[in-house]
Amino acid sequence: MSSNFGTLFKIATFGESHCKAVGVVIDGCPPGIQLGEDDIQPQLDRRRPGQSKLTTDRSEKDRVTILSGTENGITLGSPIALMVNNLDQRPGDYGDMSSIPRPSHADFTYMAKYGIKASSGGGRSSARETIGTVASGAVAMKILKEQYNLEIISWVSGVGPFAASPVDPETISREVVDQNDLRCPDLKQLEEMRQYIMSLKEEGDSTGGIVSCAIRNVPAGIGEPVYEKLEAKLAQAMLAIPATKGFEIGSGFAGTKLRGSTHNDPFTQKAGRLGTVTNNSGGIQGGIANGETIHFRVAFKPPATISLPQDTVNYDGESVTLKAKGRHDPCVVPRAVPIVESMAALVIIDMILRQEARKALKTL
Amino acid sequence: MSSNFGTLFKIATFGESHCKAVGVVIDGCPPGIQLGEDDIQPQLDRRRPGQSKLTTDRSEKDRVTILSGTENGITLGSPIALMVNNLDQRPGDYGDMSSIPRPSHADFTYMAKYGIKASSGGGRSSARETIGTVASGAVAMKILKEQYNLEIISWVSGVGPFAASPVDPETISREVVDQNDLRCPDLKQLEEMRQYIMSLKEEGDSTGGIVSCAIRNVPAGIGEPVYEKLEAKLAQAMLAIPATKGFEIGSGFAGTKLRGSTHNDPFTQKAGRLGTVTNNSGGIQGGIANGETIHFRVAFKPPATISLPQDTVNYDGESVTLKAKGRHDPCVVPRAVPIVESMAALVIIDMILRQEARKALKTL
Amino acid sequence: MSSNFGTLFKIATFGESHCKAVGVVIDGCPPGIQLGEDDIQPQLDRRRPGQSKLTTDRSEKDRVTILSGTENGITLGSPIALMVNNLDQRPGDYGDMSSIPRPSHADFTYMAKYGIKASSGGGRSSARETIGTVASGAVAMKILKEQYNLEIISWVSGVGPFAASPVDPETISREVVDQNDLRCPDLKQLEEMRQYIMSLKEEGDSTGGIVSCAIRNVPAGIGEPVYEKLEAKLAQAMLAIPATKGFEIGSGFAGTKLRGSTHNDPFTQKAGRLGTVTNNSGGIQGGIANGETIHFRVAFKPPATISLPQDTVNYDGESVTLKAKGRHDPCVVPRAVPIVESMAALVIIDMILRQEARKALKTL
Amino acid sequence: MSSNFGTLFKIATFGESHCKAVGVVIDGCPPGIQLGEDDIQPQLDRRRPGQSKLTTDRSEKDRVTILSGTENGITLGSPIALMVNNLDQRPGDYGDMSSIPRPSHADFTYMAKYGIKASSGGGRSSARETIGTVASGAVAMKILKEQYNLEIISWVSGVGPFAASPVDPETISREVVDQNDLRCPDLKQLEEMRQYIMSLKEEGDSTGGIVSCAIRNVPAGIGEPVYEKLEAKLAQAMLAIPATKGFEIGSGFAGTKLRGSTHNDPFTQKAGRLGTVTNNSGGIQGGIANGETIHFRVAFKPPATISLPQDTVNYDGESVTLKAKGRHDPCVVPRAVPIVESMAALVIIDMILRQEARKALKTL
Repeated sequence: MSSNFGTLFKIATFGESHCKAVGVVIDGCPPGIQLGEDDIQPQLDRRRPGQSKLTTDRSEKDRVTILSGTENGITLGSPIALMVNNLDQRPGDYGDMSSIPRPSHADFTYMAKYGIKASSGGGRSSARETIGTVASGAVAMKILKEQYNLEIISWVSGVGPFAASPVDPETISREVVDQNDLRCPDLKQLEEMRQYIMSLKEEGDSTGGIVSCAIRNVPAGIGEPVYEKLEAKLAQAMLAIPATKGFEIGSGFAGTKLRGSTHNDPFTQKAGRLGTVTNNSGGIQGGIANGETIHFRVAFKPPATISLPQDTVNYDGESVTLKAKGRHDPCVVPRAVPIVESMAALVIIDMILRQEARKALKTL
Repeated sequence: MSSNFGTLFKIATFGESHCKAVGVVIDGCPPGIQLGEDDIQPQLDRRRPGQSKLTTDRSEKDRVTILSGTENGITLGSPIALMVNNLDQRPGDYGDMSSIPRPSHADFTYMAKYGIKASSGGGRSSARETIGTVASGAVAMKILKEQYNLEIISWVSGVGPFAASPVDPETISREVVDQNDLRCPDLKQLEEMRQYIMSLKEEGDSTGGIVSCAIRNVPAGIGEPVYEKLEAKLAQAMLAIPATKGFEIGSGFAGTKLRGSTHNDPFTQKAGRLGTVTNNSGGIQGGIANGETIHFRVAFKPPATISLPQDTVNYDGESVTLKAKGRHDPCVVPRAVPIVESMAALVIIDMILRQEARKALKTL
Repeated sequence: MSSNFGTLFKIATFGESHCKAVGVVIDGCPPGIQLGEDDIQPQLDRRRPGQSKLTTDRSEKDRVTILSGTENGITLGSPIALMVNNLDQRPGDYGDMSSIPRPSHADFTYMAKYGIKASSGGGRSSARETIGTVASGAVAMKILKEQYNLEIISWVSGVGPFAASPVDPETISREVVDQNDLRCPDLKQLEEMRQYIMSLKEEGDSTGGIVSCAIRNVPAGIGEPVYEKLEAKLAQAMLAIPATKGFEIGSGFAGTKLRGSTHNDPFTQKAGRLGTVTNNSGGIQGGIANGETIHFRVAFKPPATISLPQDTVNYDGESVTLKAKGRHDPCVVPRAVPIVESMAALVIIDMILRQEARKALKTL
Repeated sequence: MSSNFGTLFKIATFGESHCKAVGVVIDGCPPGIQLGEDDIQPQLDRRRPGQSKLTTDRSEKDRVTILSGTENGITLGSPIALMVNNLDQRPGDYGDMSSIPRPSHADFTYMAKYGIKASSGGGRSSARETIGTVASGAVAMKILKEQYNLEIISWVSGVGPFAASPVDPETISREVVDQNDLRCPDLKQLEEMRQYIMSLKEEGDSTGGIVSCAIRNVPAGIGEPVYEKLEAKLAQAMLAIPATKGFEIGSGFAGTKLRGSTHNDPFTQKAGRLGTVTNNSGGIQGGIANGETIHFRVAFKPPATISLPQDTVNYDGESVTLKAKGRHDPCVVPRAVPIVESMAALVIIDMILRQEARKALKTL
């Protein structure tokens, strides 16, 4: 188990679906920042189950409490503990699954790792674990916005076979993203996507999807080659989100088909800085931000828990047909949007702090 | 700069193109392992420039020396320092580039980060930096093979517009991969791919490509959720390799288009263990290995350094036409094959050590 | 701020005197351990204020709640969050101190570091911060006792000018230590020491003291040279406890006066293992446990907060006389006993896990 | 094995007595620093064996080579690898010791840990391992001096039963320390101390001693409570030096006997800052530097390797008399002086970098 992330802005998350609370401790948050629960709650609300018909019917209010680290609404520099109580626990829903590992779920691997499993199956593999990520990411995002005018915006860019038409990473806004419950700015295909998800929900099936993300106003120079290149930490961060199977930045897999003469981003003079004409690099070169907008895409597989019957075997290797009970998302991408933003924020703030330390001692 | 990787099997690499030596210190290698330079050299030979006409003409013998950590060919448990001298240095080749940042190369970002640059431009962004990775990865791979019969095999699965036909991750061998200088097992398209690369080399252009990787006989249970899920660390490891733009595991981006009922991998009884019928998961569920073969793909962009003229600006923002000199790879994927294997080995050995620690204290 | 400790058994503590709660998240606790709040509470009770007349009159019940990481009283392998609510908050007690930094307290340095301070002055320098340490240490101690029969016993061995007569580290028990409220096994001097503390309390003054610690049944081989030698991590752990000024292991400072021929511990055959005749080494040689009892001593300065008037200056540099209000310990060593044990346990369990990982791959 | 130290200014050392080379890789050294081998060599010369009659007769020139990380004498920001070749290897000297663990040496514990041992016995427990520490410490010290006018001075303050009279930490200089080969500023007792050591050398015995250290011009605010308090990291750093048994800062163990009213350091207005009248705190309060001079003492035991016969047992538990061969120091403290300085420098520079990162984001 490694529920820690970050070198200078460090988080330690805790909690699974059926314990008393979930949350996070942030160590290394700078002092003197105005911070209240209202700064954190909106992202939790965007993440929580039961927001719309497109998500699971499990409904939790997910109210956050700041346990420590602030006084009179100002951060002290000491660890900030954030807690959300678990309210809507129904372990009974998982009856069958005590003897049958759900296909493509973490039931089996948690058992292989720990020799024990939580009543909900995969323990910390539950989406509920992401509350700590989102709560701490909201704190990071607030600081980045206030100190650097840095913005992190994610949106749904694919649902099953539907690929949304591209949006401009330079201008996409959270307001536009949140105009609909799918968080997809492609209004032309929106209704079709929604109906696809609703029909799968009804069938007891699920679908995958893609979340895109743009990070604007990134200070040039952040990122720590070799092994903590900025894209490497973003990739780790994204693949740490439940149900992710892929990450690509800038030109990504499509860029492998191009020639260097086409793919290279020539430099040009921009307002007060060197910039690039194109942005196939996705804002990063050699593991270090170049000041252009960072943009990347994250692949989410279809949720493993479906209520359609599945032919599989139980822990004893005997053939069985599993019909999973419980309330589950037919498609995770609408709720994944704030999670992707949060992980991105946690990467970026840590890299900024590390670069600031370096600059302070620079002599040339 | 963060040239460290690993929690228990820790490496610290050093060196750039134009200093005296490059290398790595491994801390945490278990004692009592037979280890000589001959165990390491073959992978360095697969990585080195000048192996074939497909790569750069820069030629280095890259002979490794074990400086410490072994006695009489046995590891002591103390740090193992591995060094390769730099021989073929020609800083003169980089004349123009002192005033012009190469498009899509790390010249500009290294300057933004450090306010200084090595004569070769991007300092540690040079492919030469990967020697430390490959040397330490070879040590890890030897241990994994001897102790767990664990095998890591990478191959070229795409070159520019050419997608190689799929190979079976369960059976692909290094012998098959190394049958040709492209390290691509698709013999039907091989000649076409080679000619494509050779023609780009002649033009002074470059192309991207894809490297695939299979890891067999992985102990079920390794991987450290949440933030160090096995796929998350693999993603970080791959995106830390120069010129990479994407990572996908199992069904990857294509899997986002599927339904859960199609995508899920049902369990079945295999010899002595539960296994899965299909392997869309790519051997990992919930961040933890399930014992099936891990397979993933890594996207490499076309190398940024090309000798075709490029319209760009210099550091002062003035329009210039850059014609890069120097000797460069038209396509990095053949040489990237051992690098991908090495990074994978460094991830896996660390995760195995961490899981072994856990098991030792397990009581149920 | 670095409220994290440990490489495999990792803790992250949080909370200061005047926030809602204090606590700790443990990441890396092995699964399958029986664990309930009753396993943790006794050490918190030994640490809490208001236990006896010798300590501060501030009284808190300090009831611990397990928020996550267990189910049906068994650890899951996931993070264990432990929380203690703050009940008896009286920020009003600190009136004067908003403008005057208490001499030898952390008020001034916290301001220098963070540019802000908690209403209690030194924020996390409060003894209340140690609740997280003690709670997580109790978990570690339980595991060490059950799995290795490893015992950690601390006691008071000095109070101001009174040096307790030596006790045998091989036999001292917690029952003997807890026979009196001073936790000092030297019954001859006990009454004199107690009266000394009571008279200082009345005067509004304070005194320093020494806590000794013995760790029995330590597996030979644990400790991670060079920079994480076992004694080095113990030293760090002890100097991280509030009010500590020194650490010595085995012969310590007195041993510097001896000759090697006197100081060396000759080996002898013991039951089933090599042992040493004497134990000037304190159970550690070259940073690695040799299987003998580890014993060390920790120096605690007199508490800085006294109610006697002190001539000092305020933050503006103006001469003032400070008379601190609030309720404070005249001598911290009785309450420091469980804290020393806890920090020792956190070091030892982490080192055992790291050595178990190494042994699993050993081939000779 | 953990040969790594530091969070932002990170070192990884390597090498034992009888391999090809010893050295260190520094990751995180800021760019733009003037750095040549001449900046590092003097501290290695102060550490090397054979400097004077007081030390071992083993003589090594210990010439350092910078392998990477600089160009034209300027640091690039990339890892700096420093190497010293091993020249004077005489493994034959250790004949007897292959079957007999030396009392109080690390032979036995290295065997317990690794199941194998270097021909020199305790592998990395050799003093030769400290070359990497001293070389990297010299780099840190140069930066600290140039950027902060920060000075780190150590000296011998005790040899066996001889306690040197105190020196003023505010004024002691390296020139004064190096006036004699014992590195002890107490000229009155110097000759007696030297003769004591020489007579022990002749007898084949050894003695312990004490090294003191002062750190001046430390920026107020550095140190990372809770678990990386400045004194905690200094304690770890010092106890990681071979042969150390104790650490005390400021008033140390003697201060435990005092009352708070005597021990507290009242504040006073100093030039441009608040300072303290006395300095029992040793420059640190609550784990954070207060801007006063940091001063501490380190206890060194008598070297374990003596040539006087010792009654002990061999690895088989059979009684034997050991007469160690080889060339060894009768007293390590003169050579320990630069090692203490180096470890202190490595702690301080890391803490400064971490605090600079925090300050960059501070808003109040």
